[in-house]
Amino acid sequence: MDEKATEISSLGEFGLIDLLTRDFPLRNASSLKGVGDDCAVMEYKDSEVLVSTDLLVEGIHFDLTYVPLKHLGYKAAVVNFSDIYAMNGHPRQITVSLAISRRFTVEHMEELYAGIRLACDIYGVDLVGGDTTSSRSGLVISITAIGDAPKDRIVYRSGAKDTDLICVSGDLGAAYMGLQLLEREKVASAGQKDFIPQFGGKEYLIERQLKPEARRDVIENLAKHGIVPTSMMDISDGLSSELLHICKASDVGCRVYEDRIPIDYQTALMAEELNMNLVTAAMNGGEDYELLFTVPLHAHEEIKKIPGVKVIGHVTKPSLGAYLVTRDGAEIPIRAQGWNPLAG
Amino acid sequence: MDEKATEISSLGEFGLIDLLTRDFPLRNASSLKGVGDDCAVMEYKDSEVLVSTDLLVEGIHFDLTYVPLKHLGYKAAVVNFSDIYAMNGHPRQITVSLAISRRFTVEHMEELYAGIRLACDIYGVDLVGGDTTSSRSGLVISITAIGDAPKDRIVYRSGAKDTDLICVSGDLGAAYMGLQLLEREKVASAGQKDFIPQFGGKEYLIERQLKPEARRDVIENLAKHGIVPTSMMDISDGLSSELLHICKASDVGCRVYEDRIPIDYQTALMAEELNMNLVTAAMNGGEDYELLFTVPLHAHEEIKKIPGVKVIGHVTKPSLGAYLVTRDGAEIPIRAQGWNPLAG
Repeated sequence: MDEKATEISSLGEFGLIDLLTRDFPLRNASSLKGVGDDCAVMEYKDSEVLVSTDLLVEGIHFDLTYVPLKHLGYKAAVVNFSDIYAMNGHPRQITVSLAISRRFTVEHMEELYAGIRLACDIYGVDLVGGDTTSSRSGLVISITAIGDAPKDRIVYRSGAKDTDLICVSGDLGAAYMGLQLLEREKVASAGQKDFIPQFGGKEYLIERQLKPEARRDVIENLAKHGIVPTSMMDISDGLSSELLHICKASDVGCRVYEDRIPIDYQTALMAEELNMNLVTAAMNGGEDYELLFTVPLHAHEEIKKIPGVKVIGHVTKPSLGAYLVTRDGAEIPIRAQGWNPLAG
Repeated sequence: MDEKATEISSLGEFGLIDLLTRDFPLRNASSLKGVGDDCAVMEYKDSEVLVSTDLLVEGIHFDLTYVPLKHLGYKAAVVNFSDIYAMNGHPRQITVSLAISRRFTVEHMEELYAGIRLACDIYGVDLVGGDTTSSRSGLVISITAIGDAPKDRIVYRSGAKDTDLICVSGDLGAAYMGLQLLEREKVASAGQKDFIPQFGGKEYLIERQLKPEARRDVIENLAKHGIVPTSMMDISDGLSSELLHICKASDVGCRVYEDRIPIDYQTALMAEELNMNLVTAAMNGGEDYELLFTVPLHAHEEIKKIPGVKVIGHVTKPSLGAYLVTRDGAEIPIRAQGWNPLAG
């Protein structure tokens, strides 16, 4: 990656922006004006506007010893798209701001933008703006995603009702196990040249950590089957934490069944290898970017038709609290042990 | 400021967000849902949507040795509002993301948000979202502003035409002189306890640097007088740099007259004191957040009625280039010597 190294200061801010943003076409009708003026301009006459923003800091959210810059760009974009899908909307635009320290070259930034471009291509999103500046230490990425949804289809965290079914897409805990694996190999590789990490049979975990996808397919399938969830969010901090958010926002309780939590076999094998509690990892792991949502009981038959979605429990009256029901029928209070980005 | 010091980790991310955002009412009809879900939700059925974003990094954009956190919050918000006004729009919402290092306390963040809140109150803007995380070193602030303008009133950089008048609001170079003054007093104070900086008679320069305002009044007056500029931007990197942006985007040239550049007498005194070229400071200083715009020649009489706006030159055919005409009639090519945030 360091074969060619062009100093960023040789291009200047506007030269760098021109270079990085030149391959981004505007393909959404709502994108009227992209990069190159004081503001991006959009038109959202027929729907509401959804906005989500994320700040990613090197050393806190990502470790460039094992995260390739292209993957980082892809993930940074996709996790923001995920927030738009989590409202039952569709992402249409993003802005990308970067603070870059001196150790990065123009070629590094092109790698990062190659990942952002790939995510934009796959999800049909337009890059419309941003800001580029220098940093005293490390890389900082700030992404804002803009999307749309008709008013009567927007799903908040606050609409879950007693007896609703609780659903999740995909499987949980794999991204967390991928991180454990990457950290383990990083420690093992310390000081060794030509170290070959041991990822055989664990590719899925690595992919879930380094190149997550947002669940557009689930949002499209919900629409196809005429289902509007009563509440929804994406699972970024771990299922436990997100369940408690929905319970608090909706003023409800919940019962989630341990034997219903979807877990991939690679996740299970890795937990055993690391001597970790599998359910704890799946409940609190984070970074899965799956969708957690609730639907009315009568939607049960329709929900079963959506690939990759599983009913894991049900909503209760608030007085009944939020509990995980174990395989032997014991009830364990759900606690947010999600990752605390402010403890770093 | 350090009398009470509550560690941020004691509140956690969601506790901190709750605390900081509790005093922000939603007052714009376009703000449907603010902080507290995966996305903010807005409605812009009758106008276009404008989005601008800025990334501010400690040690690059601000120096907390002389910038109070409340002023920093105010300025960070206002400079984003300025980008929306620069499109002839009105800011309605902002999102604020922070990366915070361990030396900051909850009370520090409350100071910062007091400034953001004041800016939101004065400019009628709603805080609708953000992200809060930790940083290994220093404070990073990412702000995205969202605003609106009817399609036929949006002003881009690209519409300037031959013979148009070039106008600026307010005066130029004062924010830059304020920065020089603050830096000088910082050096003078080094190692001294109870140092009293010498700002007497230079309060305007300090205020222009620490607490700039966005020119909402000019946008309102343009509308009142039925004027839609042919091109516009705000002056953040210096008049020279912005003139060249408009010339490039509009494919025109320009003549700007040295004796028409508006300069405050405190700016002039300070330039003399520092033995700096006054016109260079006014042309390249940056951070003025005044508006630079062009209007058709026939708007001359109407423009004169707007307080604080001055005609400084005119647009030419592109082949004539971009020049500053000095008091003695010499023509000097305009060059962007604006601040390069990537040289840091």
